[in-house]
Parts: sequence; C-alpha cells; structure tokens
Amino acid sequence: MAVVLPHTTEQVQQVVRYAGANGIPIVPRGAGSGLSGGASAVEGGLVVSMAEMTHVEIDPVTRMAFVEPGVINADLKEAAAAVGLWYPPDPASIGFSSIGGNVATNAGGLCCVKYGVTTDYVLGLTVVLADGTALDLGGPRLKEAAGLSLTKLFVGSEGTLGIITRIVLRLVPQPPPSATMVATFTDLDASCRSVLAIASTTRASMLEFMDNVAINAVEDVHGYGLDRTAQAMLIAQSDQPGETATREIEAIAAVCRELGADEVLVTADTAVGETYTAARRGAIPAVESKGRLLLGDVGVPLPELGALVTGIAGISTRHDVVISVIAHAGDGNTHPLVVFDPDDPDQAARAEVAYGEVMDLAIRLGGTITGEHGVGRTKKAWLGDYVGEDVVRLNRTIKDALDPKGLLNPGAIL
Amino acid sequence: MAVVLPHTTEQVQQVVRYAGANGIPIVPRGAGSGLSGGASAVEGGLVVSMAEMTHVEIDPVTRMAFVEPGVINADLKEAAAAVGLWYPPDPASIGFSSIGGNVATNAGGLCCVKYGVTTDYVLGLTVVLADGTALDLGGPRLKEAAGLSLTKLFVGSEGTLGIITRIVLRLVPQPPPSATMVATFTDLDASCRSVLAIASTTRASMLEFMDNVAINAVEDVHGYGLDRTAQAMLIAQSDQPGETATREIEAIAAVCRELGADEVLVTADTAVGETYTAARRGAIPAVESKGRLLLGDVGVPLPELGALVTGIAGISTRHDVVISVIAHAGDGNTHPLVVFDPDDPDQAARAEVAYGEVMDLAIRLGGTITGEHGVGRTKKAWLGDYVGEDVVRLNRTIKDALDPKGLLNPGAIL
Ligand SMILES: Cc1cc2nc3c(=O)[nH]c(=O)nc-3n(C[C@H](O)[C@H](O)[C@H](O)COP(=O)(O)OP(=O)(O)OC[C@H]3O[C@@H](n4cnc5c(N)ncnc54)[C@H](O)[C@@H]3O)c2cc1C
Ligand SMILES: Cc1cc2nc3c(=O)[nH]c(=O)nc-3n(C[C@H](O)[C@H](O)[C@H](O)COP(=O)(O)OP(=O)(O)OC[C@H]3O[C@@H](n4cnc5c(N)ncnc54)[C@H](O)[C@@H]3O)c2cc1C
Repeated sequence: MAVVLPHTTEQVQQVVRYAGANGIPIVPRGAGSGLSGGASAVEGGLVVSMAEMTHVEIDPVTRMAFVEPGVINADLKEAAAAVGLWYPPDPASIGFSSIGGNVATNAGGLCCVKYGVTTDYVLGLTVVLADGTALDLGGPRLKEAAGLSLTKLFVGSEGTLGIITRIVLRLVPQPPPSATMVATFTDLDASCRSVLAIASTTRASMLEFMDNVAINAVEDVHGYGLDRTAQAMLIAQSDQPGETATREIEAIAAVCRELGADEVLVTADTAVGETYTAARRGAIPAVESKGRLLLGDVGVPLPELGALVTGIAGISTRHDVVISVIAHAGDGNTHPLVVFDPDDPDQAARAEVAYGEVMDLAIRLGGTITGEHGVGRTKKAWLGDYVGEDVVRLNRTIKDALDPKGLLNPGAIL
Repeated sequence: MAVVLPHTTEQVQQVVRYAGANGIPIVPRGAGSGLSGGASAVEGGLVVSMAEMTHVEIDPVTRMAFVEPGVINADLKEAAAAVGLWYPPDPASIGFSSIGGNVATNAGGLCCVKYGVTTDYVLGLTVVLADGTALDLGGPRLKEAAGLSLTKLFVGSEGTLGIITRIVLRLVPQPPPSATMVATFTDLDASCRSVLAIASTTRASMLEFMDNVAINAVEDVHGYGLDRTAQAMLIAQSDQPGETATREIEAIAAVCRELGADEVLVTADTAVGETYTAARRGAIPAVESKGRLLLGDVGVPLPELGALVTGIAGISTRHDVVISVIAHAGDGNTHPLVVFDPDDPDQAARAEVAYGEVMDLAIRLGGTITGEHGVGRTKKAWLGDYVGEDVVRLNRTIKDALDPKGLLNPGAIL
C-alpha cells in the first residue's frame, strides 16, 4: 500500500497504532539486503523503512555505540574506528546493510569465527510492539539479569515481534593488524579437513572458503589474479598481538600444506590480506552476475563440512544446475548459491528442487537450514523439518502472545 | 511437599506432567547457591533438584561441551582443561554452583569483563516445558538463525519458563597465563576513577574491587596478608599473549599510580595472582561470617561507579548498618553486602531499608537492580521501578504464554 519513512520512535508508534486500528500489515525494512525475503512488502501492507533513522553516537569512555536502526554497518564501524574502537560483526554486506537489519537477523559475518555474531554485542534495544507501546529493553549496562532475556529475544526476530528503533551496542578496542594465509586445493575434501584442523587447533580471526565457480566469477568481475584452476580456496587470518599472529598464521599454513594444499601464501601485508577479503566479500554479487540465484545458508557441525560440500556437488550434478559454494567455513556456515536462468522454466524448477535438497541434506547432517540469514519467507517451508513441530509451536506461541492480530511481518518465519 | 531427584529428561517430563495434572508448583534447583531466593521451595510444591544429572562430555575437535545441568562449574572447567580447552564463565561460586543454575541465572563472574557472561557460551538447551514437552533448542552448531532466539530466552529465565535438562556449550582454547596487578587506595573515589580509566584504555581479563570491610573480613578468615588499612583494593589481570600481557598490566599499574594508589604490585607469578583471586572469591563468605547478609547485585554504567560506591557509604552511615562493597568493577557490577545481626530486630529492619535504598540509588544512576544474580524472590519488589510496568507486562505475557497455569517457579521474577 505504501512506504513509510519515520524519523523517530514516536512516529513509528503512530504508524503501528494506525495500522493496528485498521488491520493493516506492516513489514519493517532496513536496507533491503536480506537474503530470505524477510523485508519484502506484502499485499495491502505498509513497509516501514528505517532509511531516515541514521543517527550514530559513540561513547569512547564506556565503549558503547548508540545507534538508530538505519545506520549502515560500515558507517558505524568507521565512527567507532575514529576513536580507536571496533564493532566486530561484519556481514559481507557490511557496506550496505543496516544495523537494524543486522540485529533483526542476528547477522553473522567473516570475523564471527573468533568474535561471535550480532547478538553478542547488543546491550539494549528500543522496540515498538504491535500495540504501539515503545519499550526500552536492556541499555548501556554491561551486565543485566533483571527479568527475562527480552533484548536477546528481539535479536533475530526478523521484524515479527516488534520494530527496533534504537540500539545500544558494545564496542571493543581495535584488534592488531591481521596476518593472512591463502591456500588453494585441488581436492575439495582436503580443504574441508584443513578447515576442521585449523578450527580445532588455532583461534583464527577469519576462516573463509570459496569454490571454483566462485573464484572464477570473482575473477571475471574483478580480476584479482586468483588461481582459476583451484577447486577450493581458503582465506584465513590471525589478529593475535605481536609475534603471536605470525606464529598462528604459520601454524595454519602448516596444516594446509600437510593436508595437501597446492599453493600456500602467507603475508603480514594487510593490503594484500584486504584484497583477498574483498574477493570473498564480492563473491555473492559476482556469482549473481551469472544468473538468478537461490541463496542457501546451511550450517553443519564442522566435522560434517566435507560431507556437506561433497553432497552439494552431487545435488548439482544430479539436477544439472550450477551450485557455487562459499562459506564462513570456520563456523561450518556455507552459502550454496544455486544459479539458474530465469528464462528457462525447466532449469528454474530444477534449481528450486536443488535448493530444497541442500536444506534436506544439511538437516540430515545435523545442521541448520539457516546460520545467519534467517528464515524469512524463502526457508519457512523447511523450518518444521529442521526444528520439529514442537519448536515451531513455541515460536508460534510467542508470536501470538506478542502480536495477537498477526500484523507484524506476516508470513515471515511462520 | 517433596524433593525429586530425576536422572533423565524423561523423568523430568514425568514429574512435570504429574505436577501439571495435579496443580502442584515446581521449583527447579541446581546447587542452591543462588543469591536471590530463586531456588527456594514453595509451600505445597516440589523441588526438582538436578543433583543427580551430572554427566559431562567434551568434544575437543568441535570445542564443545555437552553437559547435564547438575554439573558443577569447576568440574566442567577441569574436564575442558584436560584437553586444553576453557569454559570462561567463572562466578565466584565456581566451586559449588551448577551449570544449570549458571544458565538459568545467566551467571557472570570475574572474567566477564573480557569474556562475557554465560549466555555467550550457550549453543543449545534441552528444556522441559510446563506441559511436559521436551524441546531441543539450538544445538552443536556455531551459528543458528532458524526462528526466534528461544535458546537465549531460556538463559536467565530462572526456572520460570521450563526446566533445563541438557546444555551444549562453546569452549575456547585456554588463555595464556595471566599477569596480575594489585593496587590499594586510601581514596575510594580514586579507585573508582582508576576502574573507569583502565576499562576505557585496556582489555583487562579481570578487574575486581574490594572495600575495607571485605579486605578485613577476608584477612580475619584467611590471613593472606592484605593491607587492612586500605579503603579499596583493585585486582586486575591481563592474559594477552607473550610480552603484551606485561605491557598491558604495566599500563594498568600506571593508571592506578597516576590516579593516587598507595601501593601497586605487579607480578607475572600466576600463583601470587591466584592468591589474590582466591581472596576476592572468598569475600562473600568471609563477610557472611560477620552476620546475616542482604546481598545486593546492582550495576551501573562505569562513569557512575564512584557515585554508587559513595552513595552506598552514605546509606550505610544514615541507617547505621555495615555495608561492604565488593565488585566485578570492570563491568560496573557491585555486590553491596548489608550485614546485620538477625537477633537485633531493629538492625534487621534498618538493613532491609538500606538494601532497598541501594537499589533505588542504582536505578537513579541509570543502573540495574541485578547484574548477574537474577531477580528471584528477593528483588522482585524493585523490578517494576527499574524496568517499568510495560516491560514487566511483557515478561508476564511471555510467562503466561509458556506456563499458563503458573506452576513453574511461582513467585520468582514476577
Ligand atoms: C552480497 C551480500 C552478502 C551478504 N553477506 C552476509 C553475511 O556475511 N552475513 C549475514 O549475516 N548476512 C549477509 N547478507 C544478508 C544481509 O545483508 C543481512 O541479513 C543483513 O543483516 C540485512 O540487513 P538489512 O538492513 O539489509 O535488512 P533488510 O533486508 O531490510 O531486513 C532483513 C530482516 O530484518 C527485518 N528488519 C530490518 N530492520 C528492522 C528493524 N529496524 N526492526 C525490526 N525488523 C527489522 C526485516 O523485516 C527483515 O525481516 C548478505 C547480503 C548480500 C546481498
Ligand atoms: C560465595 C558466592 C559467590 C557467588 N558469586 C557469583 C558470581 O560471581 N557471579 C554470579 O553470577 N553469581 C554468583 N553467585 C550466585 C550463584 O552462585 C549463581 O547465581 C549460580 O548461577 C546459581 O547456580 P546454582 O546451581 O546454585 O543454582 P540455584 O541456586 O539452585 O538456582 C538458581 C536459579 O536457577 C534456577 N535453576 C537452577 N537449575 C535449573 C535448571 N536446571 N532448569 C531451570 N532452572 C534452574 C532455580 O530455579 C533458581 O531460580 C555466588 C554465590 C555465592 C554463594
């Protein structure tokens, strides 16, 4: 029906009250970079965009940030860096996703393997509930045990429980410069075994994976000079202080060499490291330039990473569709990108089937259907298979208790 | 009515179903070390003790622990340490509190200033709901975005939403040995300004505070040789790798010297460091040997720490009761211990008043009535004043949705 661009919590309350009184559904929207259709408009509804709510304030003394939800992640990072502080969560969409969206999806990213996900940095939220009440949950206090963990409940709620209008975040000091290792493999399985060995013996601050399709797609777009013949590439970083980073990155390199990497590069040059990180960050858009994408987000316990990657290759062959795999490998969180031509209905149908089979496979391997993008609208058909009907029912119980008319982001998650 | 000691999730389900069918209230109980009365039996009810559910399993490859709720925190730490891993959360009750209780209260501790609280390490829970259903929430996966953050909701729920029967925890590698600094102050306010300066310029792995009463109580019991004349003592640690720890602990010492500490000791000897940590851990029991305690847990934003500590001294004088303050100072989380003689009704009444005034003061300073012990039964009269009636209502909405008959730990939190 309309897009609303509020500037204040009070305006959000007015919109929600109006919608409630008139039975109009509301979809909260950050930057629209979500990959599960969670911010897609619904018929006859309002989209409440946070684009105008972009105030940021950093308190260097208490190391906290007070932000409005429309602030872009990279802008917050920059404001924090200006006073020597760091907001760790770094989805690859760092340059264009909003903090409100990051909180609403509990976004992950590249540094999560060491530094955790968005929820680990959220100290407080202001939320507008379905009845228009605005609540301050938590706040600028490092520890809080007064009542149920409501702040945490709203993190990852994908706009289904309330609209987030203000966020208090914990910041930490900037880490030391990272040392970087890049390893290429002919043998996919050896790359996955390396991931497991690295994750169980070091404290890498980044451990990312790209397959051959992703490497070539990035090369086509950016021409960084990556090895187009490699079946897999691992990018790892260590940000330990001083000499310790060198020792750790050498240990990581040694694992890869021992487990059969073809080429292993180690560098303390942060500009070189940033080039590889940028290559990884650019992988989804680069693969997207090859066709329409169905974008998976399955995660498995690390010992099953090889079985997942190999299984996905099988699904790709069986259904004759390209599936590129990139991954926050150290977390066991992969993004299988099913590529298809939208003008080829038969291929599009095969892609749909493959997309579902990847989730079925993840579930069989003890994994999750979504590690960081959320359920949104695209994965809800698999939620019950994964968590079980009892857990779906508990989601529903809480949703109904907080939003009895079902007007907040209807059709997302449930 | 009775104490039940189940051995399995199924037995917990049977008990809960029986209680539900007969309208009998249930109080889940870990080790009973809680400081808010959350595990106290209620008239005509069942206490479901986790004392017999003490299985621990460590997976060194994925760095996870699978534990039953009755496991004592120190036993888990020991099992993890045996394979070079570490479970960080370390309430001072480490030697006798259970992991189930730690999860149910979202326990903090000494290392939280750097390593966070219990919730930051909880990946999955098995919970038995009020209707006897057993659910697996989350699990052995590092990232999870499938549906609402239910795992996090149960952390800190103080037995009011369900009974936790199994816990999956994230472990990390053992940190390097810590360097320790101990500083004593004549000027209380200078010690608090030092805490703020340390917390905003370093990444201390511990930053604890003891006042004169606590120092003397510990000396009376243990005789470590602490300076009985000091008005405040700060104990800080750094566990950065290699030389960095030395540099960081020296920076911490420099802050204390500059801000007026009387004596500053720096040591890389971990045995000496452990003596001071043990002194801090022993502070509550030592002060308790002086009389009955009313035990506060108020937290404030760090810039207000001085105002809180000074204000508590004023309350102590005004009501003529001893209040000893110890604190996880780096988190702004203090434990004002109101000491009274239970045989002196007038003093006991003054102590009650003082205990409440400390919470009122914390609220006025933008702080919380409980940073880590939970609301339980002893702080619920202040919950509304602190979080506001709308937030209390939201707590109630969720409680009623999950436990419509109100049989799970009735009278706790709400
Ligand atoms: C190239 C690319 C790379 C990506 N890499 C990553 C990655 O590494 N890790 C990762 O986790 N994600 C990644 N993403 C996905 C996406 O960027 C994240 O999910 C991000 O958190 C969404 O933020 P947004 O502001 O775009 O939110 P939107 O897409 O606008 O919304 C996402 C969801 O949050 C809800 N929402 C948004 N704002 C609010 C609010 N203020 N209150 C309540 N609900 C709200 C919406 O209703 C919707 O359900 C990537 C996306 C792209 C395109
Ligand atoms: C000397 C001393 C020092 C302390 N220091 C600290 C400290 O530094 N930091 C800190 O956070 N706390 C501290 N505490 C408080 C206490 O140890 C913690 O709150 C601890 O987490 C309680 O664990 P427990 O096993 O004793 O739980 P209990 O006291 O038995 O129960 C506490 C609460 O959890 C609920 N509960 C317990 N087990 C379960 C379960 N399996 N399922 C559902 N609900 C359950 C109970 O119903 C109750 O509400 C200290 C206590 C003492 C005596």
